[in-house]
Amino acid sequence: MSRKDELGVGLLGLGVVGGGVAEVLGQKAELFARQAGCVPVLRRVLVRDPAKRRPTEVPVALLTIDPRVILDDPDVRLVIEVMGGETPAVDYIREALQKGKAVVTANKEVMAKHGPELLALADKRGVDLLFEASVGGGIPLIAPFQRDLIANRITSVHAIINGTTNYILTRMAVEGLEFDVALRQAQELGYAEPDPDNDISGRDAAYKTAILASLAFRAVVHASDVHYEGISRLAPRDFRYARELGYAIKLLAIAKEEDGAVQARVHPAFVPNDWLLANVNGVFNAVQVDGDLVGRLLFYGKGAGAMPTTSAILANVMEAARNISAGRRNARLRLDARKSIKPFDTIETRYYLRIWVPDRPGILAQIARVLGDRQISIASVIQKEADPDTQSAELVIMTHPARESDMQGALGEMEKLSAVTQIGNFVRVEA
Amino acid sequence: MSRKDELGVGLLGLGVVGGGVAEVLGQKAELFARQAGCVPVLRRVLVRDPAKRRPTEVPVALLTIDPRVILDDPDVRLVIEVMGGETPAVDYIREALQKGKAVVTANKEVMAKHGPELLALADKRGVDLLFEASVGGGIPLIAPFQRDLIANRITSVHAIINGTTNYILTRMAVEGLEFDVALRQAQELGYAEPDPDNDISGRDAAYKTAILASLAFRAVVHASDVHYEGISRLAPRDFRYARELGYAIKLLAIAKEEDGAVQARVHPAFVPNDWLLANVNGVFNAVQVDGDLVGRLLFYGKGAGAMPTTSAILANVMEAARNISAGRRNARLRLDARKSIKPFDTIETRYYLRIWVPDRPGILAQIARVLGDRQISIASVIQKEADPDTQSAELVIMTHPARESDMQGALGEMEKLSAVTQIGNFVRVEA
Repeated sequence: MSRKDELGVGLLGLGVVGGGVAEVLGQKAELFARQAGCVPVLRRVLVRDPAKRRPTEVPVALLTIDPRVILDDPDVRLVIEVMGGETPAVDYIREALQKGKAVVTANKEVMAKHGPELLALADKRGVDLLFEASVGGGIPLIAPFQRDLIANRITSVHAIINGTTNYILTRMAVEGLEFDVALRQAQELGYAEPDPDNDISGRDAAYKTAILASLAFRAVVHASDVHYEGISRLAPRDFRYARELGYAIKLLAIAKEEDGAVQARVHPAFVPNDWLLANVNGVFNAVQVDGDLVGRLLFYGKGAGAMPTTSAILANVMEAARNISAGRRNARLRLDARKSIKPFDTIETRYYLRIWVPDRPGILAQIARVLGDRQISIASVIQKEADPDTQSAELVIMTHPARESDMQGALGEMEKLSAVTQIGNFVRVEA
Repeated sequence: MSRKDELGVGLLGLGVVGGGVAEVLGQKAELFARQAGCVPVLRRVLVRDPAKRRPTEVPVALLTIDPRVILDDPDVRLVIEVMGGETPAVDYIREALQKGKAVVTANKEVMAKHGPELLALADKRGVDLLFEASVGGGIPLIAPFQRDLIANRITSVHAIINGTTNYILTRMAVEGLEFDVALRQAQELGYAEPDPDNDISGRDAAYKTAILASLAFRAVVHASDVHYEGISRLAPRDFRYARELGYAIKLLAIAKEEDGAVQARVHPAFVPNDWLLANVNGVFNAVQVDGDLVGRLLFYGKGAGAMPTTSAILANVMEAARNISAGRRNARLRLDARKSIKPFDTIETRYYLRIWVPDRPGILAQIARVLGDRQISIASVIQKEADPDTQSAELVIMTHPARESDMQGALGEMEKLSAVTQIGNFVRVEA
């Protein structure tokens, strides 16, 4: 194949995903030649330690610890960034774009924190910045938002976009495990990191939510605009009660637009069992989209892993390669900076409350008053258990839609009530 | 807006979908101006009866009964075909392409019977022929196959792509209704046509399967290559037994590729409850795709209706409009004509058999022999019911994978056995 049909590629990172990309890219030469009119050829791969043994066979001569040999190489026209983390990845991406190189990245943190700036830069330099792999692994999401759903006004997005937490929640729901036990088992199986905080805190999901919200509503949504809460406070009884009430409990990424204001949040939520989303179990991800024309859509698949992520990255590489050989680029993604972000304490949602109370008359009246004083009306109350020894009972309360700040105030007040032994938990309810 | 920024559009058909397209197209001028650099303007709309009262407001002056005023108009650069049916739609599409007009169609029958020819013609004339709306209504399917999954080798597609039958099967499963009752109720609710044959026979799904199989495997799959069976022979007890065995019963569109041979079929099938597909109920559609890199994906949404279909059509119109204003076209869809079609009687699958037998010893031995003679091995047998009056019992047999021709032979032989009162039903099992 002559030089002119080759597309010089620089790969930043050779971890699990980078190894997959390097391996599969080499096998797809014929596909690229046929579909893109050029064949991506790995010129250099940036690694931390060239001596490290790796599952993937990459010629040692291609490995470098110096980003300059990739960023300064005019023959590298496409950079694939799979090193992860905010810095130095963002600096490499920025420089690559500035030098007119197309960039394909799987970096959710960089896109969630610097996406708008980098997209504007790519636009200015007339090159592609593609990031399908940054959310939902191999699930086609970004392209559908930008192209297939373009005629729709998206009203809401509800997503399960962290496989680690969905695996843990599935085990808790199905087997009644405590959080700590389910987490430990997930770690033993390699579904959770030794330090799982980034996943279980909801932070990983928050990055992806910022990206999804930006795409869905063409708004500038920064990682710091996304309120997030983790799953560690959930107890087996919450799952039991949820099931009795007709719900599953999932760590949901939620993004909505109402009158030009965008809300983006990540927290455990009750999901109605008749939503397909409630049936998404294990490490799988799913993104539910509601649009004014299309109605409800759901995209389901593996949100992580070397090969699913490689699938998304190669689709982007194919797109960039086609554009480069045709001397064009993708339609620009225009974000509307005028759209505002709705503060979390102003959102309205329904709530599930689990409260331990003394088992004697008049208790509910006091609780109802605290809620009523803040315009929180009760949809249903069930007394779940009474403990003769401690003379206490457990109440499960479902509310009608209420304002977050009001609920937080009410929870604070309830904790002080003699009528409340302990607030077991509260979970927001989507429907 | 100056003429040069306008894109002349001809609309063929003003039924439910056509009305939706005409209505929404007019509301999206700003979106098109921003995203495509040109605004589609309806120049003429082909209708059968201009006098007919319609829900959508389309200026009478635009209506015509003469296709020539659209096909011969050089200012019509994009034709949207939503009249349905094979002819004359296919002739209009062919002529439009020949005259260098881009075509967006929702016509599954035309694409299933003439797709390869029309795509080759569009390629020859250098224009787009886009058909996202022909399968799965508003669910993005065709673009994902052509772009997002391009690096994958697709191994199988399992889809629920007919909302009418899925609604009927859901009612039968949930409420234990007989087929006739569920069908009548679906008709009363407008989910089934007065003449429902096209849906319940599986023919509608077969057209869509031909299109999906062509895209998934880049093969030439004609409507006539797709074996299809309907849902009318299913009984409430089949759903009851399926549930007991851990399955749902769905009308499945199945396409697989093994060693260069493509199989494409539509028939009722047992679907394992742990597949998300088993939880797709009512009029919703879902397409499950297995790829070598991405693993399992599922796309879910409304497969029919004016607005969901309009969503898909407008996405195609946007794509064609962008290409026209940029003086380019989409990457060609290359089909490999060497891929063969696997004859239906050579497929291998597992089977569920429900058989009424005389309630006396030795019966199972005779049945097992008939199956064994044809290398069909039994995975499990359960005696479901015994009827003292008729001295008969009902056996439910699950087999291991067997060849379709062998099973058909065995069924024919069993019918002649004194050991078999009646073959209640047989359903293929996917897993």
